[in-house]
Formats: sequence, structure tokens, C-alpha cells
Amino acid sequence: MTRISRRSAVEPFHAMDVLGQAIKRKDQGYPVISMAVGQPCHAAPASVIAAAREALLSEKIGYTDALGLHALRNRISQHYSTRYGVAVDPGRIAVTTGSSAGFNLAFLSLFDVGDRVAITRPGYPAYRNILAALGLQAVEIEVNADTGFTLGPQALEEAAKIHGNIAGVLLASPANPTGTVTGRTALKALVDYCDAREIAFLSDEIYHGLNYTGEDTTALSLSDNAVIINSFSKYYCMTGWRIGWMVLPEIMIRPVERLAQSLYISPPELSQIAACAAFSASTELEAIKQGYRSNRELLMQRLPQIGFDIASPMDGAFYAYVDASRHTNDTMQFSKTMLNEINVAATPGRDFDPVEGHRMMRFSYAGSMDEMVEALDRMEKWLLKTV
Amino acid sequence: MTRISRRSAVEPFHAMDVLGQAIKRKDQGYPVISMAVGQPCHAAPASVIAAAREALLSEKIGYTDALGLHALRNRISQHYSTRYGVAVDPGRIAVTTGSSAGFNLAFLSLFDVGDRVAITRPGYPAYRNILAALGLQAVEIEVNADTGFTLGPQALEEAAKIHGNIAGVLLASPANPTGTVTGRTALKALVDYCDAREIAFLSDEIYHGLNYTGEDTTALSLSDNAVIINSFSKYYCMTGWRIGWMVLPEIMIRPVERLAQSLYISPPELSQIAACAAFSASTELEAIKQGYRSNRELLMQRLPQIGFDIASPMDGAFYAYVDASRHTNDTMQFSKTMLNEINVAATPGRDFDPVEGHRMMRFSYAGSMDEMVEALDRMEKWLLKTV
Repeated sequence: MTRISRRSAVEPFHAMDVLGQAIKRKDQGYPVISMAVGQPCHAAPASVIAAAREALLSEKIGYTDALGLHALRNRISQHYSTRYGVAVDPGRIAVTTGSSAGFNLAFLSLFDVGDRVAITRPGYPAYRNILAALGLQAVEIEVNADTGFTLGPQALEEAAKIHGNIAGVLLASPANPTGTVTGRTALKALVDYCDAREIAFLSDEIYHGLNYTGEDTTALSLSDNAVIINSFSKYYCMTGWRIGWMVLPEIMIRPVERLAQSLYISPPELSQIAACAAFSASTELEAIKQGYRSNRELLMQRLPQIGFDIASPMDGAFYAYVDASRHTNDTMQFSKTMLNEINVAATPGRDFDPVEGHRMMRFSYAGSMDEMVEALDRMEKWLLKTV
Repeated sequence: MTRISRRSAVEPFHAMDVLGQAIKRKDQGYPVISMAVGQPCHAAPASVIAAAREALLSEKIGYTDALGLHALRNRISQHYSTRYGVAVDPGRIAVTTGSSAGFNLAFLSLFDVGDRVAITRPGYPAYRNILAALGLQAVEIEVNADTGFTLGPQALEEAAKIHGNIAGVLLASPANPTGTVTGRTALKALVDYCDAREIAFLSDEIYHGLNYTGEDTTALSLSDNAVIINSFSKYYCMTGWRIGWMVLPEIMIRPVERLAQSLYISPPELSQIAACAAFSASTELEAIKQGYRSNRELLMQRLPQIGFDIASPMDGAFYAYVDASRHTNDTMQFSKTMLNEINVAATPGRDFDPVEGHRMMRFSYAGSMDEMVEALDRMEKWLLKTV
């Protein structure tokens, strides 16, 4: 058989490839430090683990409603009330198998083949790859220091002139890899612009809670038409549990439910039960965030000293996006060599930016301070030799 | 916002809708017996639960390789050797988030928009719905007593004459909802036919192990080009864990990995760790199967007595697919009324067959014997009154 679809020719998610190589080297006994993947070094909060262990004894782990357990949908609704002061009907919450399922379901239910969806460049690579797999056109709009590393109505106007009508806009705040936090005023301008033109606005809020300089604004507080995508993976340290959620405009609930029934059946039940306990783990989670804050300061200081200029705000999330051009013009090769020679894994910029990424790198600082120090020391020694 | 995509207009998965209604009634305190969803009444094997509880203490549950943990891929490879006598490289195993992810990844990596994929009618509804969402044309080929309730080369020839070239064929054995087991000779004829024409052959083997009359044949023993889709949900009683696998032809490994990286990141790690323990739980699982066997005999005897004629082989899986036309010509309404009046949930045939399904019903017998007896008693009393 030689049949392979054209649409499977999406880019690899290079961070995942680097993770694969890092796991392989670790299995071979090398002292690998991974700064490649956006994954907290901490396990889920103790209350989450306890809830899961208890449920394994007391519950039969089975299918749930396709949109998730009522208890969790209620708990998420309550979170919007206590955290943001926004009332939202639990019926509008869809629990998903990670934010990955959220993107897939949102794209499928909003857009048809050929539709254009605006995203930032640099940005999260899976956006581009999922859009491509679903026959959608990613309109990548460059963001940089001049645009405050975020998207505004003017950029969308210009993009529409060049590419044609835009059907949807997807923006993350805090953003991966830049750490950009789009403030309330700027977000409102964007949401209003989209609302007035029946452009779908998708707000990726997966890094909410990880903001070191100000407040997070949920797009839900600005418009009931916004599609909110979030997850327990980052702030709540539950990556491998594959559990996230969406807040949907009324009109999308049933289409998303229908698609979810066939595409996912339901999100993993144990993760749903456990996630109910995540919202009450603030003390533990804020302590973890303090660790990221210290790591962030360390990286902001030391990365430039070893020739990696910080290339974006770093106001939120847990990434340093750096310009590596003092060392290389080919960060794909550079990151492979770095992993092989000093066992430090980082992600080549190609993941985030097909145009400028060849000279950029992303370091995740969701690891421990000890790991950060060790990785920086290794890189410093190695780069002194290499340069 | 009024934007909703055309492709989101897939059918609901009615069994999931019935499950939702059943859960709602159960929450309201009604004594609901669900025969609607293909879900074992038993929890996962004790060894699986123990492995999960242990891992929650000893491991940080995180992202894995997109194609899954090496330990599980190795264990699955070993399963093919011990269970079927087939050697397969663990590198060809892709661990997936349930068979649902397997279908999605297989369809995306094999087919482009507009391609035709042959499936049986009746058949598993998510096939049709996922194909529709991905812009593929489901060519539904009727199977019945004359065709042995399965597909053969001749039926494919005829379908191609009517609809045009077929790009892929997807067949389940044992099949849902008919319980049909396609024997080795018939399966080989189909696989050979597809191989000779570069038609992709997808073998849904999720009900392997649940065969009451003979042997299961894996298509992997017939061709290295076949795409095998399987799961821990049915025989291994792990529905809510969302964990399955594929065996891929070499050429598909990297395309599937690329798509999986962006669409799923990785399958849930805890479920992967736990699933490693599933293959050694034969004693427990065979005892559970004995229960299904008894339920099956009970349903084969009593369903016809209350006016539901058995409409298919029931050789495998855990479903009775029945002709309900002595009671109704509208099983959608009938199943709602039955749930509301006697708290017995079953699935309307519309899920499995858009043409004849209005008079058909599917009863899952994966529950306990007590539940079966009670449900049959309730139906008997109710139908005596109704008719």
C-alpha cells in the first residue's frame, strides 16, 4: 500500500520530536534536562491525586456524557464566578480531552474546508497543524515589538485585504512562545471587531494563572460569542491527564456535543473526577508559580549573558523565546546537537514561526530551579567552547 | 454570532444521547438499567487499578511520546505474538486515546476530502459521523442474512460501479451491532482484494476476545498493509480510560505520529501505565466473558418471546440487534418512551442504519445477569400492556 493522504503532510510538532529524542536518551541513561516541552516538573496537586486514587476504588471508570460530568461542568462554571466575576451556565461548559480536543472541536464546528483562520506568528504550532489537517487556511500574522507581540483589528484588516475574508481569529493570552499578555483594552477591541463582523473569536486561555506582571482577562467577560479554550495542563500541572474545557456560545453547544460523541465518546472519566479537586489547590499551585517566577528571573538574566537575546515579553506562561542567531542560523540542527552533546533539550523556533524560526529557540522554565541552573551552566560551558 | 460549519451537521450518536438521558434520570433517583451503551458493567481488572493507584504515587503523570509509552507498545507487540502468533515490531504500534482517536488518525492520514470509504450498514455510527466531519464519503453497503452480515469483494465491486472508486474499506469483526464474526477465509478474500487494488483496509478489532462461537482473526496475520484498530475498552473493561491502539503499515507511522502530536499531544499517561497490566488479567476477564455468554443466551431466548426478533448472528461483541417492528415503526420514539416509563435504556436502530434502523433496536448485554433479568421482566410487563 502506498496510499497516504495529502493532508497528513502537516509539519511535525518539533517540540514533541525533541521530547521523543530526550526520552530516548534518558532511557539510555543520559542526564537529560528537558526545557523542550511546556510541562510543569510538578505532579498534579495532592488533592487531585488523592481524588483519583479514591475514585479508582469507589467508582467504575466509564463513559460520561460527551460534554463531561455535571459535577465538573458545575465546578468550572463556579470557577468563572469566583476567579473572574463572570456568571456562566454550566450547560455552556464542554469538558474536553485536553485543549487539543477543544481546538479540534471548535475548528470543526465553526469552519468549513477552505475557511481562513488568523493566528499569530510566532504561535503555538498545533494551531497551524490542526487547521491544515482539517482543510482550513491558517493566516499567520506576524507579531513583534511594534505590535506589542499581539494582534489588533488593524492587522486583521490588512490580512483580509491580502488573503480575503477571515472566518475566525485565534489568540492566546498569555501566549506561547512569546509570553505576551494581551491586556483587557486590546482584547476588547479585538473581540468587538470580530463580533461586529461575525468573525468567530477563539480565546486560548490555557496559560491563565501564569501571569507574572498583571491580570488575566477572560474573553468570556467581553462577549458571549467568544469561544473559550482552557485546560488543566499548565497552571494545574495535569498535562498527562488530558483534560481541558471550553466555554461555548449557546449556538455551538449541540454541534460540539454531536461531534464530540463520535470523535471522542467522552473525556477520560478519572481525569474528570480528579480535576474537580484542582480548583481548591490554590496554595500548592501558587507555590509552584513562585518557582516559575524565580526561574523566569534567572533566565531573563542569564540567557542574554550566554548569547540568547530575549525576543519577547515573557509576561506570562513559562517560556523564554530567544534569538539564537549569535550562535546559529539553524536552530533545528543546533537543538539536536545541544541535546546530543550536553543533554539539554530545547525547542527549535521552526515550531512557532516558519519564517523567522530558524534563528529562534524556546526554553520552557516549568522545571525546577536546580534544573534551570544546571542547564544554564552546561550551556554556558558548551557555548564558550563552541563559539 | 450565527456561524456554525456545515460539516458539524453530523448525526448525533443516539446511544450517547440515550446515555445522557439515562444519566439524568439516574441522577433524579429513577432505577435506570442501561442497555444503551456498549460498556461493561465491570470495572477494569484489579491489576489495572492497582497499577494506576501505584503510579499516582510514584510517577508524575505527564506527556509521553505521541505514539505512546515504549513499555505499552512493547507489551502490545508481545500480545500479537502470544495471542495470534504474529510478530510485529513495537515501532508499528501507535497507542491512541481510545479507538476513537484511531479512526480519526487513520482517516486523516489515509484519505483526502471527497474520498470514498466503504462501511457496512448496519454498522457503528461513529464511522459515518467521523467520515462526514472529515469531508469523506461513507459508502454504506447493506449487509444481511444473504451476505452473511459481512462485506465481500463482490459487494465492493458493485458499490464501486454505483458510487465510483473506493479508497478504503472499514470492517469490524466481531461487528457492532450485529455481532457478526467474519471468518478467516472471508477476511482474507477481502484483504487480498483491497491489497491488489491499493484500497486501504481498516480492521476494527475492538471486540476481539468477545467471540462466543469461534476464533478471532486479526487482519495483521493476513497483510502488513492492513490498518488494525483496537482498544482496551471492551474485552479489557476500560471504556472511561480512553485508551486504545493501532497497528500501522510502515508507511503510515510517521504521518500518524505527526498528526497525533498536534491533535492529541499524547494519550493519557495513567491509562497507558495501567493498560500494561491488562494483558495479564485473563482469568478475571474470561470470568467476565462467561457472564456475557450467559446474558447472551438469556437474551437470545427471551427477546423473541417479548416480540423482539433477533436480527443478526450475535456470534461476538455484546449486543442483540433486534427487529422491533411488532411493537413500533419508530424506535427513536419507542426507546425514549421505554426509558421514561420503565427506566430501561436501549439504543434506537437509527444509530446503526439510516435506512432500516427506524424499526430496529440494539440491546447491550454487557451488564450483569440481574440487570438483564430485571430489564426483560420490566419490558415483558410493559409490552403486554402496550401491545
